[in-house]
Amino acid sequence: MDKPLTIAGRTFGSRLLMGTGKFSSPEVMKKAIDASGAEVVTVALRRVELDNPQDNILSAIDSSRFLLLPNTSGARDADEAVRLARLARAAGCDPWIKLEVTPDPHYLLPDPVETLKAAEILVKEGFVVLPYINADPILAKRLEEVGTATIMPLGSPIGSNRGIRTRDSIEIIIEKATVPVVVDAGLGAPSHVAEAMEMGADAVLVNTAIAVARDPESMARAFKKGVEAGREAYLAGLGRSGRKAEASSPLTGFLR
Amino acid sequence: MDKPLTIAGRTFGSRLLMGTGKFSSPEVMKKAIDASGAEVVTVALRRVELDNPQDNILSAIDSSRFLLLPNTSGARDADEAVRLARLARAAGCDPWIKLEVTPDPHYLLPDPVETLKAAEILVKEGFVVLPYINADPILAKRLEEVGTATIMPLGSPIGSNRGIRTRDSIEIIIEKATVPVVVDAGLGAPSHVAEAMEMGADAVLVNTAIAVARDPESMARAFKKGVEAGREAYLAGLGRSGRKAEASSPLTGFLR
Amino acid sequence: MDKPLTIAGRTFGSRLLMGTGKFSSPEVMKKAIDASGAEVVTVALRRVELDNPQDNILSAIDSSRFLLLPNTSGARDADEAVRLARLARAAGCDPWIKLEVTPDPHYLLPDPVETLKAAEILVKEGFVVLPYINADPILAKRLEEVGTATIMPLGSPIGSNRGIRTRDSIEIIIEKATVPVVVDAGLGAPSHVAEAMEMGADAVLVNTAIAVARDPESMARAFKKGVEAGREAYLAGLGRSGRKAEASSPLTGFLR
Amino acid sequence: MDKPLTIAGRTFGSRLLMGTGKFSSPEVMKKAIDASGAEVVTVALRRVELDNPQDNILSAIDSSRFLLLPNTSGARDADEAVRLARLARAAGCDPWIKLEVTPDPHYLLPDPVETLKAAEILVKEGFVVLPYINADPILAKRLEEVGTATIMPLGSPIGSNRGIRTRDSIEIIIEKATVPVVVDAGLGAPSHVAEAMEMGADAVLVNTAIAVARDPESMARAFKKGVEAGREAYLAGLGRSGRKAEASSPLTGFLR
Repeated sequence: MDKPLTIAGRTFGSRLLMGTGKFSSPEVMKKAIDASGAEVVTVALRRVELDNPQDNILSAIDSSRFLLLPNTSGARDADEAVRLARLARAAGCDPWIKLEVTPDPHYLLPDPVETLKAAEILVKEGFVVLPYINADPILAKRLEEVGTATIMPLGSPIGSNRGIRTRDSIEIIIEKATVPVVVDAGLGAPSHVAEAMEMGADAVLVNTAIAVARDPESMARAFKKGVEAGREAYLAGLGRSGRKAEASSPLTGFLR
Repeated sequence: MDKPLTIAGRTFGSRLLMGTGKFSSPEVMKKAIDASGAEVVTVALRRVELDNPQDNILSAIDSSRFLLLPNTSGARDADEAVRLARLARAAGCDPWIKLEVTPDPHYLLPDPVETLKAAEILVKEGFVVLPYINADPILAKRLEEVGTATIMPLGSPIGSNRGIRTRDSIEIIIEKATVPVVVDAGLGAPSHVAEAMEMGADAVLVNTAIAVARDPESMARAFKKGVEAGREAYLAGLGRSGRKAEASSPLTGFLR
Repeated sequence: MDKPLTIAGRTFGSRLLMGTGKFSSPEVMKKAIDASGAEVVTVALRRVELDNPQDNILSAIDSSRFLLLPNTSGARDADEAVRLARLARAAGCDPWIKLEVTPDPHYLLPDPVETLKAAEILVKEGFVVLPYINADPILAKRLEEVGTATIMPLGSPIGSNRGIRTRDSIEIIIEKATVPVVVDAGLGAPSHVAEAMEMGADAVLVNTAIAVARDPESMARAFKKGVEAGREAYLAGLGRSGRKAEASSPLTGFLR
Repeated sequence: MDKPLTIAGRTFGSRLLMGTGKFSSPEVMKKAIDASGAEVVTVALRRVELDNPQDNILSAIDSSRFLLLPNTSGARDADEAVRLARLARAAGCDPWIKLEVTPDPHYLLPDPVETLKAAEILVKEGFVVLPYINADPILAKRLEEVGTATIMPLGSPIGSNRGIRTRDSIEIIIEKATVPVVVDAGLGAPSHVAEAMEMGADAVLVNTAIAVARDPESMARAFKKGVEAGREAYLAGLGRSGRKAEASSPLTGFLR
């Protein structure tokens, strides 16, 4: 039996985290989240009206069933990210924050230095910090040392659907990490999330690939199965790959 | 709703075909087959004692639930393959045959010319022929033209667990085929089968990766989910991959 | 010191073969061929007026310096290919022929069965046959057995510039071959030809990438260097690649 | 005509930089450097006895022909790196420094935060700083902003010979950079350096692959040609790669 995913002492039955951007409507989003089985749902603070009980996104997500994880999407430096996190907590959110610091609007790649700086501040203020980072093993280790709850390396740029293009680095991150590794960004197909889980990642986060699918609800179900498939295969002991063929059946050649 | 996989007029609820080589025991094999949900199970004729009702493999597989698909594994040319196929039919098997002609024992790669030759003969004799081939789009087309029931291109050498290393060719085969395309050989992880299904393959065949796993039953379940995940994603409309990031949430930048 | 490339007893100082299609003019082509250092130049029989001494392509290539290698480009089956080859010889060409049988005009992929059939006929008629094939190790072996002078597996579809997308198969072909292996088609950059030579290929053939470059003469020179670089590296003994870092300098840490 | 490589106002005729670790003897190293055409030669400060005129490495390299570029290999944080750089200058070296901060001895991956910190200090003290970094586009931009003379992203871990496994990120770094981009680490074959140059990198640095070759002198020559091939191809305008074939010769089909 698999152990549940545990982040900062809280356990989750699902290893698929979901983002809420780009859906065509709150109804479509709600159905996709249900189908995904996700228990952690990220939401961009900028999109949420925190003090408005009618806010579409918040009202679509039942916070008794899901951990609503605000992210600092759009923050360009540590200051902005810290400010967003504090706003969220002041509005009554749990003190969990997905930390994103992306100074460049083009590729939305994370800033390693500002991310580390913000993480240090937020951890000290009692936040549970889940930082989005480039697949940089040294940075991952440093974030862990300042007390982040997870490491969230990117597979490829946000929304690119390119899959895991940073495999070597993510392998090292997983090898060295003592907190959960959640592969985030660029995961565009169930095969991509399965691959992440087969490598030993603890979880994955998906948004665009589900939200913009022709049928988001089915796609969410497909990703759910992809995550479970990869995880089960990891636990069941995948074989090594080799260059030579190995016959599935011994070549006794009784015919000759 | 997905249509069922249909091969030569017969429909199957599962798109995962399973091989029976390399299992540590018939019991382990039986549990893995059950967990996989497979409805087509291949068996090497050379390993089966066709006239022996006590044969372990045959008795482990309930032929009312499964299509037992004999393969010509070990045949080095068309003659040997044809001879094996006829033996199977004479012993009372269904006239379905997975055609494998592999003159080289090292990499077990299929011979395109002998495979085509054997396919022609067997189709004329009324066999339902499922040929194992290199990922060669022209050969695939020619086999289809002589009347094979499927095309079974290899992802990578048998037993290598390398996944789909012939992606460009398989894409073309799928684009051009009018019979089901079943990706066979080398599929070593659920992410590999998911990838095949996402590309539009109709089915996959797996053996080694399940049989030699630490826990074959769990691994079979993982592959089942991988196949379903890939198929559902294919039907739900996967997005295109791109180079640039696309923010999951619009960058309104309310903070500034 | 490297041995020269030897095909059918004839030696060549260059391991870069060049095609002559798609150039903007015979003058541009001539300069590119000179810059490439190629000694074997392929020409599509269909493009050449064999009995016309003013033919632009033929007159642009000095046949005392180059082996003019006619190809059967456009042939859709063995018959057409054989017919083209005989026409070329009847017109006074050397009995060397690059055998191309491509029934599908879309991807121009070679037909394994017709290619083998044509090769057998042409070898018997005294031709020196250089067959263009899919990267199929068994087919390569069979062609060698009927007496072809080389094996010319494709890296990727003609004109696609995708490089070597059939690496696993080409490695096996090289391992098993006793005639020269010339990687053909899809080689779109010097890094691609260098890679082929580093793998142990005996030569490469390039056309599109040079012909359609902004500056074909410079590009030809670049490919020449790429081939030489890859060949020299192959002979000088490339290291193995590994996963872990190895410090270029021992970590004595005298500073501490 | 190509412009020369210019770093911090100094021009270089070669775009191949060479490291000096792992050679079997100073003589072998000297011959390889000569064959490489390199004009910038890195040397680990820890290996050099700066005040000893008999030091083998220093005496093997003619500093009137080469820029001797000391590196801070072995430094685990900014302080150690800064200290090493100052020692080098105090001993009479040029104020150029290849900045390496690698806290983890296993993979020798660079620390983004300490590297930025050391770069800031060293630039202020008048050093010409060439930082070795993970392929992180945001970090690259920040280093450029504090005034480093180049960006040196890794292709893969030092000494791994894996080539460019960070292609997406290096493409972005090249697209955004206003200082020279020198791809460093993991380049194990001429095809790897050619690829870097074809992508538009300004230069590459190679050490292990040359030093540990069976014949380092030939290998150095091979890398020289690989760099030139890639650069020339970049300038001559490489074609785009596509999925479909494009015939090298138009399919007029005169045969039919």
